[in-house]
Amino acid sequence: MIKIVIIGSGNVATHLIKTFNRSNKVKVIQSFNRKGLSVAGIPATDNYEALETADLYLIAVSDDAISEVSAKLPFKGRLVAHTSGSVALEELSPENRRGVFYPLQSFSRDKDVDFSKIPLCIEAENDRDREILEYVARSISQRVHPVNSEQRRSLHLAAVFVNNFVNHLYAIGDDICRKNDLPFDLLKPLIAETAKKIEHMPPVEAQTGPARRNDQNTLQKHLNQLNLHPTYKKIYELLTKSIQEQQYDSI
Amino acid sequence: MIKIVIIGSGNVATHLIKTFNRSNKVKVIQSFNRKGLSVAGIPATDNYEALETADLYLIAVSDDAISEVSAKLPFKGRLVAHTSGSVALEELSPENRRGVFYPLQSFSRDKDVDFSKIPLCIEAENDRDREILEYVARSISQRVHPVNSEQRRSLHLAAVFVNNFVNHLYAIGDDICRKNDLPFDLLKPLIAETAKKIEHMPPVEAQTGPARRNDQNTLQKHLNQLNLHPTYKKIYELLTKSIQEQQYDSI
Repeated sequence: MIKIVIIGSGNVATHLIKTFNRSNKVKVIQSFNRKGLSVAGIPATDNYEALETADLYLIAVSDDAISEVSAKLPFKGRLVAHTSGSVALEELSPENRRGVFYPLQSFSRDKDVDFSKIPLCIEAENDRDREILEYVARSISQRVHPVNSEQRRSLHLAAVFVNNFVNHLYAIGDDICRKNDLPFDLLKPLIAETAKKIEHMPPVEAQTGPARRNDQNTLQKHLNQLNLHPTYKKIYELLTKSIQEQQYDSI
Repeated sequence: MIKIVIIGSGNVATHLIKTFNRSNKVKVIQSFNRKGLSVAGIPATDNYEALETADLYLIAVSDDAISEVSAKLPFKGRLVAHTSGSVALEELSPENRRGVFYPLQSFSRDKDVDFSKIPLCIEAENDRDREILEYVARSISQRVHPVNSEQRRSLHLAAVFVNNFVNHLYAIGDDICRKNDLPFDLLKPLIAETAKKIEHMPPVEAQTGPARRNDQNTLQKHLNQLNLHPTYKKIYELLTKSIQEQQYDSI
C-alpha cells in the first residue's frame, strides 16, 4: 500500500483526498494545511516537523506557493510532486525527488468529481519515480499520460483556450441575452450540442457559421450590432479572421 | 390538422420534415426543392406552380436565397415563414403574411435531432399568425419563445459567440495539442465539464483561470509560448483583457 501525504486544502487537495480514500491501492495517511483542518477524516497537521514518513508527498497548493512549500519540507530524498499544469518541475526543491501529478480538469468545491475519466498527466525525473506516480494515478483514473514539461505547459495553455476562454464566450452570450431581455437558457441546448459535436469530429471540420462561409452580409450585420461594445466587436473581428486563416491552413 | 409545405432540402428542412412526420397535430403535405427529391416519403415537387394549398409554408433555404424564393411563390395572403436567425422578416415578400420560425440549434445532416428541447423562436406580423406558428412549434418542442426581430438578431449574434467561436477555440486547443504530439482527447473531459458548469451557474461566476486571477506570471508565460503564432497570441491578449473588463463591470 502506497502511503501519501497531501499538502493543501483547496479544491484539488480535497477532491484527491476523497478519491484516494476510496482506492484500496493507496492510502492518504495525513493532510497538511495551514489551519491543520482534517479533510474527510484524515489526520491533519499544520506543522512541517510533524509530517509523517510517506512514499509520496503531493503538493496541491496555489501555483505561487509551490516553491516555498517544497523548500520548507524538513526531509531529503523523498518523492514530492505538485499538481499544477503551469509550474515547472524545477520549481520544486532539489533536496527531494521531484515529480508532477497534474489532473487536467477544472474543479469546483461543491461538485463531486469522477476521477476515473480525468486525464492525469504525470512527470518525473527518473523511471522509478514515474512508475510510482503512474501506479498512484492508475489507482484512481483510467487515463494516465506521462508527459514532458514542454507538453504539460502546452496542455495548460490549450486548457486556457478550451476552458477559461470558452467560458468567457458563454459570458458574452449571456450578456447579449440580458441586454435584450432574453433568458440565457435559450442558448444552453446550442452550447451543449457544440461541446458534444467535437467528441466524434475534429473541431476544424465541425466549424460552421458566417466566418467559415465568408458570409460578408451577415458578418457586417453582426459587426454593426456590436458598435456599442468595442471589445466584443474586436473579439468578433479577430476570431472571424482566425477562423478564416485556419480554414486555409493545412493543420 | 395544420397542413405545412416545407421548401428546401438542407439540414433544417430535412430534420423538420422528419420531426413533423411524428407529430399528430400537423402534417407536412409537400416538400419543395430544386431537384424535386422526396424526403422521408413526403410528395415532392420542383415546380412553384405545383405547390399545394397549405396553412403554412416554411422556407428553410440558405439565408441569401430566402428573399428570392419567397418572391417566386405564386399565391397571395398565405402564411409564409423562414427559419433563419439573421434574416429580417421584411425580406419575405409582402404578398403573403410573413413570419419566422427559428430553431436555435446547430444541425448536422447525419445526426438525429431531438426537437423537444430545441428553443423555437417565432415571430409574426399579427396575433393570429403568431398563434398558428406557436401551435406548430409546440407540436414538436416544449420550448417556444415569441421574440421580436431585434431579439432574434441578438440571439443569432450570441449564438455565433457560444457556438462558432467556441468551436474555433476548441480547434485552437486541438492545434496546440497536435503541435506538441498530444492527443486532443486529453482536453475532452475539460471541454465537457466547462459546458456543463454553466447549466447551473452564470458564466461570469463560473469564470476561472489566470486572466480572472490576474496571475501575471502565468499570463506572461503563456504569451511567450504563443510567440510563434501571432493570431493566437492576439486572441489570448484580447480575451484576457475582456475577462478582466467584465469582472469589473456590473452586468
